[in-house]
Amino acid sequence: RLRPVGVGDVEVHDAFWQPRLDRNREQTIPAQHEQCETTGALTNFRRAAGHTPGEPFHGMYYSDSDVYKWAEAASWSLASTDDRAVAERLAEVIRLFEAAQDGEGYLNTYFSVDRVAERWTDLVVRHEMYCIGHLTQAAVAHFRATGSRALLDVAERACGHIEARFAPGDVPGTCGHPCLEMALVELYRATGDERWLRLAVWQLDSRGMGVLNGSEYLLDHARLRDQSFVTGHAVRALYLYAAAADVVLETGDEELSAVVDRLWADLSRHKTAVTGGVGARWDGEAFGDAYELPDRAYNETCAAIAHIFLAWRLLLRTGDGAYRDAVETALYNGVLPGLSQSGTEFFYQNPLADEGRHRRSPWFTCACCPPNIARLLASLPGYVYTTSDEGLWVQLYVGNSARVRLPDGSSVGVELSCGLPWEGTVQLRLTPVEAREFSVFLPVPAWAGEATVRVGEEVVTPERRSGYLVLTRTWQPGDEVRLDFTMPVRQIGTHPRVAAGHRRVAVTRGPLVYCVEQSDHADAAVADLRLAGEETWRPEFAADLLGGVVTLHTTGSALKVDEDEPLHRPYVPAEPLPTRPAEITAVPYYAWANREAGPMRVFLPLLP
Amino acid sequence: RLRPVGVGDVEVHDAFWQPRLDRNREQTIPAQHEQCETTGALTNFRRAAGHTPGEPFHGMYYSDSDVYKWAEAASWSLASTDDRAVAERLAEVIRLFEAAQDGEGYLNTYFSVDRVAERWTDLVVRHEMYCIGHLTQAAVAHFRATGSRALLDVAERACGHIEARFAPGDVPGTCGHPCLEMALVELYRATGDERWLRLAVWQLDSRGMGVLNGSEYLLDHARLRDQSFVTGHAVRALYLYAAAADVVLETGDEELSAVVDRLWADLSRHKTAVTGGVGARWDGEAFGDAYELPDRAYNETCAAIAHIFLAWRLLLRTGDGAYRDAVETALYNGVLPGLSQSGTEFFYQNPLADEGRHRRSPWFTCACCPPNIARLLASLPGYVYTTSDEGLWVQLYVGNSARVRLPDGSSVGVELSCGLPWEGTVQLRLTPVEAREFSVFLPVPAWAGEATVRVGEEVVTPERRSGYLVLTRTWQPGDEVRLDFTMPVRQIGTHPRVAAGHRRVAVTRGPLVYCVEQSDHADAAVADLRLAGEETWRPEFAADLLGGVVTLHTTGSALKVDEDEPLHRPYVPAEPLPTRPAEITAVPYYAWANREAGPMRVFLPLLP
Repeated sequence: RLRPVGVGDVEVHDAFWQPRLDRNREQTIPAQHEQCETTGALTNFRRAAGHTPGEPFHGMYYSDSDVYKWAEAASWSLASTDDRAVAERLAEVIRLFEAAQDGEGYLNTYFSVDRVAERWTDLVVRHEMYCIGHLTQAAVAHFRATGSRALLDVAERACGHIEARFAPGDVPGTCGHPCLEMALVELYRATGDERWLRLAVWQLDSRGMGVLNGSEYLLDHARLRDQSFVTGHAVRALYLYAAAADVVLETGDEELSAVVDRLWADLSRHKTAVTGGVGARWDGEAFGDAYELPDRAYNETCAAIAHIFLAWRLLLRTGDGAYRDAVETALYNGVLPGLSQSGTEFFYQNPLADEGRHRRSPWFTCACCPPNIARLLASLPGYVYTTSDEGLWVQLYVGNSARVRLPDGSSVGVELSCGLPWEGTVQLRLTPVEAREFSVFLPVPAWAGEATVRVGEEVVTPERRSGYLVLTRTWQPGDEVRLDFTMPVRQIGTHPRVAAGHRRVAVTRGPLVYCVEQSDHADAAVADLRLAGEETWRPEFAADLLGGVVTLHTTGSALKVDEDEPLHRPYVPAEPLPTRPAEITAVPYYAWANREAGPMRVFLPLLP
Repeated sequence: RLRPVGVGDVEVHDAFWQPRLDRNREQTIPAQHEQCETTGALTNFRRAAGHTPGEPFHGMYYSDSDVYKWAEAASWSLASTDDRAVAERLAEVIRLFEAAQDGEGYLNTYFSVDRVAERWTDLVVRHEMYCIGHLTQAAVAHFRATGSRALLDVAERACGHIEARFAPGDVPGTCGHPCLEMALVELYRATGDERWLRLAVWQLDSRGMGVLNGSEYLLDHARLRDQSFVTGHAVRALYLYAAAADVVLETGDEELSAVVDRLWADLSRHKTAVTGGVGARWDGEAFGDAYELPDRAYNETCAAIAHIFLAWRLLLRTGDGAYRDAVETALYNGVLPGLSQSGTEFFYQNPLADEGRHRRSPWFTCACCPPNIARLLASLPGYVYTTSDEGLWVQLYVGNSARVRLPDGSSVGVELSCGLPWEGTVQLRLTPVEAREFSVFLPVPAWAGEATVRVGEEVVTPERRSGYLVLTRTWQPGDEVRLDFTMPVRQIGTHPRVAAGHRRVAVTRGPLVYCVEQSDHADAAVADLRLAGEETWRPEFAADLLGGVVTLHTTGSALKVDEDEPLHRPYVPAEPLPTRPAEITAVPYYAWANREAGPMRVFLPLLP
């Protein structure tokens, strides 16, 4: 059982991540506050508070959650920096939440004024618990970041209202869109009040009782404990499974643990794109069948975030680096593409191929993804380390300085600098208060080539355990560890049951999945590019491109295509397709669609 | 310019089609009447007629169109047979239509009672013109089948109401869902009244004026005359283009003709599945980008029908066999799969691969497809022949006896028998009233191998023109023509720009596309089947299987799959996938999902 290290304990100093976190705080969070204002989502709270008589409700019935996610993002950002502007805006928003909540603790602006009688009449569609889930997550973030109970009190009243209305063991209650379950476990962690854990368990156990019409799409087709395959709306499914993993962390429930393992196995073996994107289907934003991993995948940004939530919880339970790798893959390649270079435009869907019509937007009618990205980035420092009884675990190679409390109560200063995601160099400087024996766990990702470890000047060969190097010794203040990976470019194939993967490869280097964009290929349509599968790729750092990226270069082939050939025609085995050599440039997938619109491909077909 | 030969002039006697047309009349049409009763679609007319005070409206705002399509199917079936039960039901339904229409000619049961003020306030969504389009198509069918003007009068009043409300040259009017445009041209053909042709042209020319908010999805992004690529909702797009082709047929408008040619080129070169299915995307039931032809295509049954409508009109304009081939392909492989063997269950979507969860339903909330299939099948005799100034054209090889009036006014009896789709044998016996010179055009489909033609006992080598054999001679009563095709099994590849077609083939024989179903493969998962691309396939008639089908057999390979292998892993060029020989059986795609549920594939991957 690993334990997280709080957002506020880790200060990011990283060539790749720090500009992104700064942009999140300086551009994204203010722009999203403005969107909440423009769309009326904030006005809905003023209306519910009675400040704007006669005002109609604005937006979707779940628009409260946009504001709550914004508040969570703002809260986490306050854990890292003392940004007055953000703090003041947040304080004002929290006052609105307080004012909009009624005396019974009920809070949902859609039902606050003219739909009071409709409260709790439609758990299937109306997202009332979902919104309180996001309120609660914001409240826990705010409490952890600032120590203030202001928002936590609002959340506890709201959860108390739900506890009274859907009493554990008595009245089944669970929402068409999970979220509250995870939030309740967090609320329990923040407050120590077991009521919230009990309510979380009850919400999970209410699945399969028909509260949601037995819908498979809504994960109500069976008791959660009997669910055996990943299905339905991707974000909802993963929020639910992540909550189950949370409960397992807190209770050690072995039955539930086996369920989560089973679902993770289905997810990771059958239903995860090479980018960590999940939820293949546009219809219903849903998981597809096993091995259904098409180019034009839906891969909602929120689903990649949910994927991280689930993998992180399984990592905390097991210390298995495979979960850590999943967090890292989804972060770089499932979530980051959702954000423009400017920090103010977003993808909802993240397909693996496009013809140039899929572009980012500043906001959406259903605006779940933008503030979800903002809150994840703001909380990123919380994913850098964990601890265990054995010592300190690095989880993400993100440059930072931190002060970590070890389980024995001692505290250790950590300075980490690294060249990721471009170079496989990691330096770690440890400053325990005094000499102390513990283990340091350094992940060896699946993408890493040769790893060389030095402690001080000495090359060491530490134990390897489930994807980590384990360095156990008595650490002196100022001890330094240096880790160097090679980062070979890999051509990644897919399980042969994946129809869309047949004779195609994706190109990766380090934690990054790459793609080819038309912008870099003046002489060939990207649809015509082909690989032999034996190419050597040359990495090259392009400081001025896409904010500074390592591009990958090789000589492959381009088909000589006759556009007038019939679409369907007899296959002639002996007739190789005519090709010519073509210079191919790949850029990180997270950076696509930041230049002129044009075709993009993650997978390239193999000749013949 | 070809001219159609009416449904009532052709009596189908065909081992393949006659049971289907009988089942359509005996099972499908009555079952669909029952569905219109059960869903309340018929009650909506009683309510509009004032027969059921206090009754609410039932179903979707376009549910009238279900009943109109049923009425069209019933009407066409009366052209072929004298079915008392159908005739009586239809007469009763027509009386309901009459009673539901108001004094101004307005007819839409959604707006008839309590939404009178909302009439014509939402052309984008509400389908009022669309419904009248289906009414009008039913009316023309009824008039042609029975000679009765009863329904035609209702339709003319309704179209007159629209003409008054959206006056040509004055008030732009066009519907979010095209249909009325085609129907108006048919109404013009049936009545000779040029008002209807003018109104049709005006509706087409109203595109791009912003009536539909300039939406590309609704084909309002440009003047129709400036539209250059196939886009948007597939059924809507093709109904619109078919109407444009209708106008071209009647007016010879060359500008519009070039538009339709351009759109057809985009459709046939970039956006048509091997089955003739069209509209790749589940989101929005829409066309994808060029070459976007995934396994899990939407391929709505209605869109394949619309594809036939468009191709047929282009065939009438040009006499080019490529359009005929498109009609035939879409009929056998795009429409027929939409219907169960029982005739009472339907597919809305027709994907090219499935894992066993996609099954037919007796009806849908949006029930467009079932009665669309019924009306197409009931009108099938009208697709068998055309005429031109040169003589008689066979268009579909469907056994029948017919009496066809040639353009010179003389009439000729025709008896056609054939072994299609299983054997490439066609016999034609011509009985002109007296000896007469004219040409007989016999299609040579793209799928045909060697063709041998005999007139009487004599082997002849007729002229070939655009996919037809042209036999020009003085025909004596009783002259016989015999045509024999070989029907090689073909492995069909796809244009190299189709990502999903990379190193995969579909198997076809004659007009039929085949698929593999798990039911026939006890020893291997269909996902693991592979071909070398050089297989010889053995056809075998299986009288007891799926209503009697030719199955295809070969020895291919099955991958030895390790299910526990990672989903994504480095590609190793030198490592061939381990395989073992596997007996493969293919069945016609139209017949899939009529046995126990299980995986299905149209495309099989090629080794390596």
